[in-house]
Amino acid sequence: MSFLNKILQRKKEIHSSLIIGLDTDISKIPEFFLSLSDNPVFDYNKLIIELTKDLTLGYKLNIAFYEFLGSTGYANFEKTVELLPDEVITIADIKRGDIRNTNRMYAGYFFEKLNFDAVTLNPYMGVESLQPFFKIKNKLSYVLAHTSNPGANDFQDLKSNDKYLYELVIEKFIKNGTDSIGFVVGANYPELVEKLTKTYEYLSLLIPGIGAQGNDLQTLTKSIRNPYCLVNVSRAIIFPAKKVGNLDELKSVILSEAKLYKDLLPPFPST
Amino acid sequence: MSFLNKILQRKKEIHSSLIIGLDTDISKIPEFFLSLSDNPVFDYNKLIIELTKDLTLGYKLNIAFYEFLGSTGYANFEKTVELLPDEVITIADIKRGDIRNTNRMYAGYFFEKLNFDAVTLNPYMGVESLQPFFKIKNKLSYVLAHTSNPGANDFQDLKSNDKYLYELVIEKFIKNGTDSIGFVVGANYPELVEKLTKTYEYLSLLIPGIGAQGNDLQTLTKSIRNPYCLVNVSRAIIFPAKKVGNLDELKSVILSEAKLYKDLLPPFPST
Repeated sequence: MSFLNKILQRKKEIHSSLIIGLDTDISKIPEFFLSLSDNPVFDYNKLIIELTKDLTLGYKLNIAFYEFLGSTGYANFEKTVELLPDEVITIADIKRGDIRNTNRMYAGYFFEKLNFDAVTLNPYMGVESLQPFFKIKNKLSYVLAHTSNPGANDFQDLKSNDKYLYELVIEKFIKNGTDSIGFVVGANYPELVEKLTKTYEYLSLLIPGIGAQGNDLQTLTKSIRNPYCLVNVSRAIIFPAKKVGNLDELKSVILSEAKLYKDLLPPFPST
Repeated sequence: MSFLNKILQRKKEIHSSLIIGLDTDISKIPEFFLSLSDNPVFDYNKLIIELTKDLTLGYKLNIAFYEFLGSTGYANFEKTVELLPDEVITIADIKRGDIRNTNRMYAGYFFEKLNFDAVTLNPYMGVESLQPFFKIKNKLSYVLAHTSNPGANDFQDLKSNDKYLYELVIEKFIKNGTDSIGFVVGANYPELVEKLTKTYEYLSLLIPGIGAQGNDLQTLTKSIRNPYCLVNVSRAIIFPAKKVGNLDELKSVILSEAKLYKDLLPPFPST
């Protein structure tokens, strides 16, 4: 099944556009939990997945939070991937980009060995360099177009021949077809989300910047005009905003935050 | 000691600008060697380091070739780092770039935990996003400016207000100071190497694209005008071009290639 079809099918089941980001920073895991477990990062992920797997389209794993613990971290990462059911959408947030010879390694690990549905990639080295990712069937590469961070405008908003760099990135990459290419567009750029999802009926956007990064959810959801967009929420769901002292409290906070965001993010365009 | 001083001191000892790239692709390790070892990637690195540590300024480890083997790969990566003597220059070729919260994890792992001297970074998300790397003292971040791959011109050569994107990247990042910022410039852009190393007396460039990527070594070495540049050679040194059948042959080929490149790459500008 193509990744775009998997998105549609999963949205019909779950009735939401929510992706949960497993950015499992060990320093943010509640203190009481650390003392319960020999391997808190993996056990925390296991808890979140058990609680939320019917409330989310799937999970985005940001590799940085696993790599921070080195080989132990990668073991946690791989064991977490094994927990994810087949029907769940899986995104490896890796933001990689290197020469072709190197990208073959990255594509081999994330797409072929771990069987992720999608990855995030950095466009700076050009379309040619990322081809090893695009060649693998039924996978999607979300190329960074306009990111949600404050410094994003440094280069992404430079104009060349009346077009912004992020527009030129989109123009060049989309030639590979929307069955293998999507884009990362921050929730703080609802006009861009609207323009792209109006123009491209089958384009998938991965939208970060909701929750801890704080952007207007209502404006964003109105701007989404095709059914293939995914909205990621990480810290606001997986880490309680207030101190929690025991497992029951923790479960209840995670569950209510996940339900909240699930319901706030409609699966399909309302207009 | 600052990284720039470490470069100078090491160049005086070794008399070369050579950095050896430990891009240890398991599929390129000679067949006979695979059967000698339970852990061929690590043992191959160990052999190369033993043979070449007095012929090179240091080593650049491209993380992709380790990550490909998952948690085992990261264990090999960390064990290889432990083999490297203090006086040797160590570069983690990671080409990372994410939001600040994520970059803190990357900087923590590569600079603080593994104590690399330098990393490579991708500029697309802007200067602000990469600050967690720049804040750590006596470390250098090589930001991708003009890369050596065929598709590099897609975006790096776009012009905005009469300046190329790679020039604007250099302009913005260099404001953080050349004691924390250097740039990656491909060996196929000798004019850019010359311009930058003439303009900035204390700027370090990391130059890939020699050896397997095949670029003119003589033109390149003439273009280097300050003493802080490092030239990386990976595949052409660590993997024999012809089939080798035993350990003695392998050692002799690696040693002669390393000596060749060491001597071809003068430590300081000749003019």
